[in-house]
Amino acid sequence: MDTGSIVGASAGCAFVAAAILMHGKLSDFVDIPGALVAFGGSFSALFIFFPAKTVLGVFAAVKHCLFEKLPDPSGEIRRLMELAGLARRDGFLALEKRLPEISDPFLTRGLEMVIDNYPREKVAQVLQVELQYIEERHAVAKKVFEQLGASLPAFGMVGTLIGLIEMLHTLDDPGKIGAGMAVAMVTTFYGAFAANMICLPLAGKLENRGKEETLLRELMIQGVLALIDGEAPRAVEARLKAFLDPKARQTEASAA
Amino acid sequence: MDTGSIVGASAGCAFVAAAILMHGKLSDFVDIPGALVAFGGSFSALFIFFPAKTVLGVFAAVKHCLFEKLPDPSGEIRRLMELAGLARRDGFLALEKRLPEISDPFLTRGLEMVIDNYPREKVAQVLQVELQYIEERHAVAKKVFEQLGASLPAFGMVGTLIGLIEMLHTLDDPGKIGAGMAVAMVTTFYGAFAANMICLPLAGKLENRGKEETLLRELMIQGVLALIDGEAPRAVEARLKAFLDPKARQTEASAA
Amino acid sequence: MDTGSIVGASAGCAFVAAAILMHGKLSDFVDIPGALVAFGGSFSALFIFFPAKTVLGVFAAVKHCLFEKLPDPSGEIRRLMELAGLARRDGFLALEKRLPEISDPFLTRGLEMVIDNYPREKVAQVLQVELQYIEERHAVAKKVFEQLGASLPAFGMVGTLIGLIEMLHTLDDPGKIGAGMAVAMVTTFYGAFAANMICLPLAGKLENRGKEETLLRELMIQGVLALIDGEAPRAVEARLKAFLDPKARQTEASAA
Amino acid sequence: MDTGSIVGASAGCAFVAAAILMHGKLSDFVDIPGALVAFGGSFSALFIFFPAKTVLGVFAAVKHCLFEKLPDPSGEIRRLMELAGLARRDGFLALEKRLPEISDPFLTRGLEMVIDNYPREKVAQVLQVELQYIEERHAVAKKVFEQLGASLPAFGMVGTLIGLIEMLHTLDDPGKIGAGMAVAMVTTFYGAFAANMICLPLAGKLENRGKEETLLRELMIQGVLALIDGEAPRAVEARLKAFLDPKARQTEASAA
Amino acid sequence: MDTGSIVGASAGCAFVAAAILMHGKLSDFVDIPGALVAFGGSFSALFIFFPAKTVLGVFAAVKHCLFEKLPDPSGEIRRLMELAGLARRDGFLALEKRLPEISDPFLTRGLEMVIDNYPREKVAQVLQVELQYIEERHAVAKKVFEQLGASLPAFGMVGTLIGLIEMLHTLDDPGKIGAGMAVAMVTTFYGAFAANMICLPLAGKLENRGKEETLLRELMIQGVLALIDGEAPRAVEARLKAFLDPKARQTEASAA
Repeated sequence: MDTGSIVGASAGCAFVAAAILMHGKLSDFVDIPGALVAFGGSFSALFIFFPAKTVLGVFAAVKHCLFEKLPDPSGEIRRLMELAGLARRDGFLALEKRLPEISDPFLTRGLEMVIDNYPREKVAQVLQVELQYIEERHAVAKKVFEQLGASLPAFGMVGTLIGLIEMLHTLDDPGKIGAGMAVAMVTTFYGAFAANMICLPLAGKLENRGKEETLLRELMIQGVLALIDGEAPRAVEARLKAFLDPKARQTEASAA
Repeated sequence: MDTGSIVGASAGCAFVAAAILMHGKLSDFVDIPGALVAFGGSFSALFIFFPAKTVLGVFAAVKHCLFEKLPDPSGEIRRLMELAGLARRDGFLALEKRLPEISDPFLTRGLEMVIDNYPREKVAQVLQVELQYIEERHAVAKKVFEQLGASLPAFGMVGTLIGLIEMLHTLDDPGKIGAGMAVAMVTTFYGAFAANMICLPLAGKLENRGKEETLLRELMIQGVLALIDGEAPRAVEARLKAFLDPKARQTEASAA
Repeated sequence: MDTGSIVGASAGCAFVAAAILMHGKLSDFVDIPGALVAFGGSFSALFIFFPAKTVLGVFAAVKHCLFEKLPDPSGEIRRLMELAGLARRDGFLALEKRLPEISDPFLTRGLEMVIDNYPREKVAQVLQVELQYIEERHAVAKKVFEQLGASLPAFGMVGTLIGLIEMLHTLDDPGKIGAGMAVAMVTTFYGAFAANMICLPLAGKLENRGKEETLLRELMIQGVLALIDGEAPRAVEARLKAFLDPKARQTEASAA
Repeated sequence: MDTGSIVGASAGCAFVAAAILMHGKLSDFVDIPGALVAFGGSFSALFIFFPAKTVLGVFAAVKHCLFEKLPDPSGEIRRLMELAGLARRDGFLALEKRLPEISDPFLTRGLEMVIDNYPREKVAQVLQVELQYIEERHAVAKKVFEQLGASLPAFGMVGTLIGLIEMLHTLDDPGKIGAGMAVAMVTTFYGAFAANMICLPLAGKLENRGKEETLLRELMIQGVLALIDGEAPRAVEARLKAFLDPKARQTEASAA
Repeated sequence: MDTGSIVGASAGCAFVAAAILMHGKLSDFVDIPGALVAFGGSFSALFIFFPAKTVLGVFAAVKHCLFEKLPDPSGEIRRLMELAGLARRDGFLALEKRLPEISDPFLTRGLEMVIDNYPREKVAQVLQVELQYIEERHAVAKKVFEQLGASLPAFGMVGTLIGLIEMLHTLDDPGKIGAGMAVAMVTTFYGAFAANMICLPLAGKLENRGKEETLLRELMIQGVLALIDGEAPRAVEARLKAFLDPKARQTEASAA
């Protein structure tokens, strides 16, 4: 689970709730018609913009990004070194009994192909295709949230316009002006809050996560290919450390 | 028919109508002068920006995009494999009796040229020209909707300014201020709603559809050329599967 | 004359005028100080931004773009084929008696050089220089209108601020508030209307026209060079048809 | 002196002053706290954004751009042709007596090195370094004004917020509301006017001037190198005319 | 310590405080709920957008940028020339006694590796990795501040909406409207001021500083490699002067 995101989102909502509760009450910020326009309108527009299966696939991408932790690259390097040693000593079939302890499906897929003696090119191609699909999933999910981040404030404003126009038609009772305007403005609040607290930061997170995962998957592909090439553990390490970010690489270097 | 777009647009309008009806009535949101400025102004500006035949051609592009379903790439691969087998066995003329069951005019065009024994280069060139034209049509239609999405809110604001200025000149009767302002704001509502609900999402849809159609047409061109080259069905399949998106390719692969 | 632009601009102004006249009168929208700030300010800023001769040259570019029709590319191809046949049969001097019926100065210039037996490289170079100049003229004119499209709304807002500040200083007479605000807002109306109805669409038109003219001039350069090379009319046609847009090329192809 | 800029800036200020004087008085637009926030704030932020010596160097760049006229390229070509003839006839030392009539320091620098018999590569390198420095000066100055053009309106809004907040705290005396709001809005006026009348157009002017000066300096470098190479005046002319813009080149050509 | 930034930030705050104190009091601009929304909301969103360790690392980057002065490139060239002379005369070990007087850890690291007789490629690689890390740290810190500069005004507006909505619900007591609106607007003031006075200028500073430091580090890497290559001091100088900016290089040149 991505602690930073959960803490960030909770803290953001808590700050806003606290600010509301200092002088008012949360129920002043509930407005069904406003929510219909801001959220209903934005989501409806999404289904015109993107194919339906793209929009629905975004939930899986977000869940994956927030609740599934990526394996640590340094740990994966150590694991691949160890597997490389095993494969050199006892052959590819020896890898089979280590499969159960590997939880990452991408690496499992690669090792299974090694055990089944697939040719090197086939393994590389299948994993590259899988990686392409992962990258595309992140890119599309990011684009969906950026689009939401742009249309939520716009529909928030549409909702406020609706509220103001209705209020102006009932100006006869001046006592209701304030409440009418308040309700109208709640929709702008919905759009601005949801866009800036959720959608735009999530678009950023998906981009960062996408970069991280691409790097990790490329490291795994190289590791599996090194296994097939029968490289020694030290050679595997040298080949894979190029994927670590500079700081981590340095720590490794000074530890070595 | 593109169900997602139709459902999205209907749902969006329904949400907004529901929000309006909860506290007011739809007739408060009808304003002829406002519509003249927001829609009339934006469309007039389009005819300065783009040549008239470009603007008018956009309707065809939208109709094509919303109501004509693109053939499924996997299905087309199977069909082309089958035709390739037929052509190898019985010669190009045998393709003729299969023409009636092909509804896509692009593929029909290509097969007709094959049957008529056009040289390979000529077939490739004619289909490429057709594809270029399809791509351009999508790109121009997208640009028109992006331009509308930018000018509708601007003309909406122009209309609101007109309404406010007129209202301020008749301030003598304070009872009319509210209604005057309400009418003025309806134009901003028109511009914001039409831009964010229709134009910008349609620009996105046209871009996505353009990418999909380009891919499908390139697959068809390669398929027709493979036919001329007399390739075996399996070779045709291998050549065309590169055009499938990673996920579909994988499904095919695991099915194979 | 570019009918689309004239019709678009007239219709746009008519829509706005109609909207005004439905509830008010046109004279409410006349404000000398506002016009000074919005238009005077924007044009003054142009003279800081661009050299004076650039700004003044824009009028010529717009006139050229709106009132001079570009020759039709297909017609020019036919004319160049015919001239090529004539030149092959009777020599370059025979072209001289056809010069009067050519109204386009660019082509005339090229043919004169052919008749005067200029070397091929010299002809190509002179026409390329002329084409560069035409492209630059369109690019600069487009940039001027984009700049105007950005500064007109800004100066419109400056004018409105001036009007509001003055009005607020004379709040003693509440009866004048409405009229004061109305006058103040007219300037924002000027800026928004002129930018979105005239400047930004004209910038788009100049860009589109620039692309069209570049293509036509390149076609003419190739045509004139083909004449010098003594190519046969059919070869000239094949060489020049690459400049037609896909749809036109196809029509030609199916006509051939 | 750059007449266009001076006339533009003066006219712009005159238009705005005229608009103010038609219904109010200039003193309504003087507000010390507002000026502190809009101008003081923007300039303070500049000193965080850029190193101090960059900000201070901008004044020199603007002075140079507005008050020092660039020599005319055609005139410089004629001068360099003449000097080339002189150098061929009487040797490099003969150039010395022509130095006093050359006012441009860049060209003077180059000629001095020729007279002192510096090697060709050294001359080219020194002048290239000088040119790089000139280009960088223009680019940085442009970036500073673009930054100012973005932060002036922002700080203008900050000043208006301050004024409004203070005014709202003294609502007890309704007679002061108008004046308070007027004062608050003056800051927005400062920011919008200074950004759109001065900063953004100056950024454009510095960019255009930078392109012009780069071209002129490159022409001079080539001219000085041609002198060292001992080229004949006609050869010098041919080499340098490539730097003229198409229109000027054509005029030269038809004059030749 | 970066004097320009400290002076700029202090002056900016002083100007704003002065403007406030001219007509009001600072305590009118303190609002706890507003600060919660503007600052709390923006920082919470940062933790969704970026990994937590990235956000926390930004403080170190800013401290480094504001309080640690970069060594002067010309001074470093002189030092490296001197060290090169020493190394040629007395061998690498002689460098050891000069280490204590070098305060920059990057250069120290490089020299230590020289003294320890690391191979040339290893030295280059280790220092390049360190440089990559420094560049990435600047780039990420810049992106964080740009993100803050975009979300602070957005959350400022969210806070103002909250304040206005609450105020409108308590319209019964008209005497409180002014104070309520004032408090609501303070949040927009927070967002606009913090973004334009601190975040966006700091993003600019980090970018400029990043460029400067990259140049200096590349100069040091080349200097250390020149030492290993046993180059003479004059050769070292010629090699390193390419890293000086044109103006500094010229001053050096004329001083030489």
